[in-house]
Amino acid sequence: MAKKQFRVGMVGYGFMGRAHTNAYKQVGQFFPSDYEVVLQAVSARDAGKVKAFADQWGYANTETDWRKLVERKDIDAIDICTPNNLHAEIALAAAANGKAILCEKPLAMDAAEGLKMVEAVEKAKVPNMVWYNYRRIPAVTLAKRLIDEGRLGKVFHYRAKFLQDWTIKSDLPQGGAGLWRLDLAAAGAGVSGDLLAHCIDTALWFNGRLDTVCAMTETFVKERMHTQTGKVEKVGIDDACTFFGRFENGSLANFESTRYARGHKALYTLEINGEDMSLFWDLHDLHRLQIFDYKDEGKIRGWKSVHVTDNSPDHPYMDKWWVPGLAVGYDTSFTHQVADFLEGLSTGKPASPTFRDALETQYVLDAVLDSAKKQQWVTVGKA
Amino acid sequence: MAKKQFRVGMVGYGFMGRAHTNAYKQVGQFFPSDYEVVLQAVSARDAGKVKAFADQWGYANTETDWRKLVERKDIDAIDICTPNNLHAEIALAAAANGKAILCEKPLAMDAAEGLKMVEAVEKAKVPNMVWYNYRRIPAVTLAKRLIDEGRLGKVFHYRAKFLQDWTIKSDLPQGGAGLWRLDLAAAGAGVSGDLLAHCIDTALWFNGRLDTVCAMTETFVKERMHTQTGKVEKVGIDDACTFFGRFENGSLANFESTRYARGHKALYTLEINGEDMSLFWDLHDLHRLQIFDYKDEGKIRGWKSVHVTDNSPDHPYMDKWWVPGLAVGYDTSFTHQVADFLEGLSTGKPASPTFRDALETQYVLDAVLDSAKKQQWVTVGKA
Amino acid sequence: MAKKQFRVGMVGYGFMGRAHTNAYKQVGQFFPSDYEVVLQAVSARDAGKVKAFADQWGYANTETDWRKLVERKDIDAIDICTPNNLHAEIALAAAANGKAILCEKPLAMDAAEGLKMVEAVEKAKVPNMVWYNYRRIPAVTLAKRLIDEGRLGKVFHYRAKFLQDWTIKSDLPQGGAGLWRLDLAAAGAGVSGDLLAHCIDTALWFNGRLDTVCAMTETFVKERMHTQTGKVEKVGIDDACTFFGRFENGSLANFESTRYARGHKALYTLEINGEDMSLFWDLHDLHRLQIFDYKDEGKIRGWKSVHVTDNSPDHPYMDKWWVPGLAVGYDTSFTHQVADFLEGLSTGKPASPTFRDALETQYVLDAVLDSAKKQQWVTVGKA
Amino acid sequence: MAKKQFRVGMVGYGFMGRAHTNAYKQVGQFFPSDYEVVLQAVSARDAGKVKAFADQWGYANTETDWRKLVERKDIDAIDICTPNNLHAEIALAAAANGKAILCEKPLAMDAAEGLKMVEAVEKAKVPNMVWYNYRRIPAVTLAKRLIDEGRLGKVFHYRAKFLQDWTIKSDLPQGGAGLWRLDLAAAGAGVSGDLLAHCIDTALWFNGRLDTVCAMTETFVKERMHTQTGKVEKVGIDDACTFFGRFENGSLANFESTRYARGHKALYTLEINGEDMSLFWDLHDLHRLQIFDYKDEGKIRGWKSVHVTDNSPDHPYMDKWWVPGLAVGYDTSFTHQVADFLEGLSTGKPASPTFRDALETQYVLDAVLDSAKKQQWVTVGKA
Repeated sequence: MAKKQFRVGMVGYGFMGRAHTNAYKQVGQFFPSDYEVVLQAVSARDAGKVKAFADQWGYANTETDWRKLVERKDIDAIDICTPNNLHAEIALAAAANGKAILCEKPLAMDAAEGLKMVEAVEKAKVPNMVWYNYRRIPAVTLAKRLIDEGRLGKVFHYRAKFLQDWTIKSDLPQGGAGLWRLDLAAAGAGVSGDLLAHCIDTALWFNGRLDTVCAMTETFVKERMHTQTGKVEKVGIDDACTFFGRFENGSLANFESTRYARGHKALYTLEINGEDMSLFWDLHDLHRLQIFDYKDEGKIRGWKSVHVTDNSPDHPYMDKWWVPGLAVGYDTSFTHQVADFLEGLSTGKPASPTFRDALETQYVLDAVLDSAKKQQWVTVGKA
Repeated sequence: MAKKQFRVGMVGYGFMGRAHTNAYKQVGQFFPSDYEVVLQAVSARDAGKVKAFADQWGYANTETDWRKLVERKDIDAIDICTPNNLHAEIALAAAANGKAILCEKPLAMDAAEGLKMVEAVEKAKVPNMVWYNYRRIPAVTLAKRLIDEGRLGKVFHYRAKFLQDWTIKSDLPQGGAGLWRLDLAAAGAGVSGDLLAHCIDTALWFNGRLDTVCAMTETFVKERMHTQTGKVEKVGIDDACTFFGRFENGSLANFESTRYARGHKALYTLEINGEDMSLFWDLHDLHRLQIFDYKDEGKIRGWKSVHVTDNSPDHPYMDKWWVPGLAVGYDTSFTHQVADFLEGLSTGKPASPTFRDALETQYVLDAVLDSAKKQQWVTVGKA
Repeated sequence: MAKKQFRVGMVGYGFMGRAHTNAYKQVGQFFPSDYEVVLQAVSARDAGKVKAFADQWGYANTETDWRKLVERKDIDAIDICTPNNLHAEIALAAAANGKAILCEKPLAMDAAEGLKMVEAVEKAKVPNMVWYNYRRIPAVTLAKRLIDEGRLGKVFHYRAKFLQDWTIKSDLPQGGAGLWRLDLAAAGAGVSGDLLAHCIDTALWFNGRLDTVCAMTETFVKERMHTQTGKVEKVGIDDACTFFGRFENGSLANFESTRYARGHKALYTLEINGEDMSLFWDLHDLHRLQIFDYKDEGKIRGWKSVHVTDNSPDHPYMDKWWVPGLAVGYDTSFTHQVADFLEGLSTGKPASPTFRDALETQYVLDAVLDSAKKQQWVTVGKA
Repeated sequence: MAKKQFRVGMVGYGFMGRAHTNAYKQVGQFFPSDYEVVLQAVSARDAGKVKAFADQWGYANTETDWRKLVERKDIDAIDICTPNNLHAEIALAAAANGKAILCEKPLAMDAAEGLKMVEAVEKAKVPNMVWYNYRRIPAVTLAKRLIDEGRLGKVFHYRAKFLQDWTIKSDLPQGGAGLWRLDLAAAGAGVSGDLLAHCIDTALWFNGRLDTVCAMTETFVKERMHTQTGKVEKVGIDDACTFFGRFENGSLANFESTRYARGHKALYTLEINGEDMSLFWDLHDLHRLQIFDYKDEGKIRGWKSVHVTDNSPDHPYMDKWWVPGLAVGYDTSFTHQVADFLEGLSTGKPASPTFRDALETQYVLDAVLDSAKKQQWVTVGKA
């Protein structure tokens, strides 16, 4: 039986553009479905560069204006890989044109903008998803299964950190290729929107609604050269952001992110402590899930390091890859996400996180930044 | 040359009484000094039990009233191992009698009480020290040396956690042997005074004054049987306490403690991130110090796990123990502390933390509890 | 400039067939070169299954007889992914037809057969390589660089293990899909040829010639159902194989492999101890290299865990992937190997290991099995 | 009730003398028994040094001739802490004088000598024990319990290593304080007798008789200054020793020891792989036992890191120490051994390993050295 085509038009071709494209190319081999992904077009302002990217990565053709891309009839889905400040505009246009939308995280610059995006895709009834790819690391997905099976009992604590060290140098500019994350106008926020967004997304998925938060932010390097103006300008983003709070289920939150933790490259760690079981995961060893099972016999009770690589249904996604013991990489989280998205198209049960799911993270981020500014506790909003 | 006698009178004989006594007995062999420690007397209310303890542990005789103990002429130093609510009263009496004082942590029920104790010992000019023993774990002392050598550069972050799981059971009573830590009247606070006190003490030692804090506390089990009244009563202590804040040196604090983190027995971890070096330590593997040295060559840069067991001056205290690779235990931190205290007597440079040093921790604890109660930022007081 | 085509014809489509194909598909995006890899054809006996594989993985067409495949004019390279007993026959035919050859490891059933293959490819002057893919794990390649830079000083010890546990069940048959590795006729040997071959390949690459060996083998499950005869038959392979020996450079070898080490899935570990530096690597955490640098200052000397994920030239291959901290998987070792092979075609400097390089491993394997049989030391042969 | 006195006379006061003495002083507090240990006398040739040691460590008096010590009426037990070449002579004399004997490991210079010692203590019917103290590390004792409970099922593999790096420097002399271990005449052997002896003792205790072995030894530094002759002399000891073999229960052995493994201080590791459970232990993290339990549910199966610090009967010896999470050190293994020895005196069931138990290790060592010399397999002898 012939497969249906799923023709992708991607906006942007940076780090995420490469990661998504690799996933689109891999998914058909490892996770065959009703759909064949077609790399139809990629859009970016620089005609030469986008052509080179398209040639190397196998896109059929290119656009230099995303507005044209979203209007093309030969495209089924728009993948938004731009800096954050363009997400909403592109998404609204794509929804208006009836395209499925796969949007990089965070969904939006803030919850108000995100809400408009949610309303647009829901009104247009187009499939939609946000690339919170860490949900699809097999060890993380396994953790979710254990939680859903009720193994943790009453939850007391949830803590997450995302620590990096790449912006310690004060001569790093704000803006420019790969550095738009330091530019408030393009990024909307600093580590909160970039790093904590991942931590919050997983937390809400694992542990439910976060009711109230209290936050602290800091900008260690106050001024940086701006690549667009050529001048030293005030840095508007948060270099570090820490918050605690309370989940609806009564458990306590402790979150921290920074780009000034020397020695850590991308140390996203999470831990959830339940009455009966605790779980710990660490992006630096992403193929392992640490499990403490209080139901184990006392004298041999300890933290188990589960190497989530069994090629059996026991370990999510891994039956499609290699043999036990052979780890897959960061990149496969995107492949898994495309696979789930396509399965959602087939089954009519949309893969998470949808725009609406991801909007919850925006409300938390808004509350966090608001709390840090006001220096007081803030209640998390809701749609 | 004959050694001077250092005749100890100890009040209390619980967990800490045993730990201190082991140290008193060991110190002369491993850290010979000008002093010979003499276990002169131990005091506790139950005459039979204290006699049994004295016999087993080698105290010459006993008292059933600590007031008599502190007045005895044949005693040079009073070691206070009682629940927290008795520290001040005993210390004031001991100071009035001209005794050196070694007091269990935390120094006092609060800063006001602690300040009185400081004033008393300083007025009486008696040697004084608080048993913040983790300073004397060799790996922790090594960390302090590296910090003092200026290797870290500008510090950005300091984080510490102390996680336990022993009070999850709701049928655990408050009060009674070993359980006075759950009784507000005896303990003064919950995990903040018991666990965070250690974390704060090390932090102030490593990273200087903490200026402002913002805290959250929680009591998960609201009522417990009280062993003194025999009735189910409200639990007054904090079961969990999280706070963040700002150090005087511009770095950010993130602290957390709880007795509801399933899977962790006594997981005191600390990490300090400097521009040039980061350090991490973990009580569960207390003989190791993790060091990330940014000055290492790029391609072989990584976290080093230093096994702090070299019997050379390189590794603090370890030249007095065994051979490289053979770890000492938790208990030796007390032995080291006595050794340093006695050396302080000889040199006239008091071993830290003195009562005055430990008072700083009380101000932080007061601010933390005040912040949690008011749900707002609080400035840490000072003497 | 148009790229040259590199048209691959693959024989077999099992675990390795999938791994190689993924690499062929990925290489052009991540490691662009003068060549475009074209998946021209795949061959296997079952017409329906091979057609399904070709459709899913993107091969243009299929063959059911590998003899036809090797004779096709539209194919530049033959990739041999069959059980070991077919390697030689296919390779000889491919060489005779002037094809480049990429052969799965081990090269051959024994050194005599391997020597014929070497002679054939050298006579035919066709590019050739054996898929000892672990050389291309970035952490392993980094280790090789450190060794080549002379950082280790005099080497004293080299040890490697490859531990698995998947054949403990005695009701597992020998022969059949995925189980030909238990069938002596198809595999030629057990863990020695399957697992130790990897360990030996890396060892010779890192540490030079192995002169003499002394080995012990064991077959724990003596009889298993054979899927071809349907009868319970004697098991001819080695279930476990341990050997020690002496390298030409004076260092000592200790190697072990087994499929009966409960708890280990694919635990290939290696360690090399030099006077100035030691290195350790572990396939279960393949993205890390452990380094002990004796030249580090004494008090902060320890094993460093290097997360080999910097996207800089510091860390081999990683500049082509993501950002620091984000690990790639097992699969990328094949992508790297194809990239190196294609670069070798361009530069005329063949990528290692060539058939001749891989022949050395066969001589060691022959000596190991001979030693185990004779229960005495054996000198390793050479071509 | 008054305790019986157990009056110790110790020969030698080096590293082991200190370790034993610390244990004698601690045992009464932590493991009260029917006996009170009395440090009666210590013997060594240098009158001044032995006096200083006695004063510092609390021995009542001294001897400069061990022959006098063993004849003293006021002594119940002789503790032999000398270099290996004096063990037999002292033990025979002590037995002849009816003393209990606690002898440092290895028991003897070889099995023949060891057999005489066994016969002497058995004829004299004196309590006897060899200080293979690693049996009393709580994590090791826990492993033994799990094995004795039959949890492992059929055992396939036992491997152990003891890696050090302290003799790499070629200018280290042989002989002299702390360096008699490099002198064949004093030590009898190199790493085999010093390090492998520990590994073999544990292995026989855990896994039963070892039937056959095949070994390789190496002396990397061929000549060293001898402190007694003042000349550079040939080094007679083994610097490294590796062997494999077969246990009576059908499992395979792989053992290695060296003092040339840069980066390892005292890395004694052991692993036993059973059909149903595997265990791993590492002296560098002596408070942890790693357990893989195949009976765990598949999806959460992994290696558990058990922190053997519960103060409950679950964790051997730990109910006598502190609270959960607080590790004890290397030194406590001696305290536990004295406790068990004294309990053996009370119950009449001698604590292991007795001289006879330890003789088995001598037979294995003899076979190992014989095999290395002859370069062939050797059958382990028996009494």
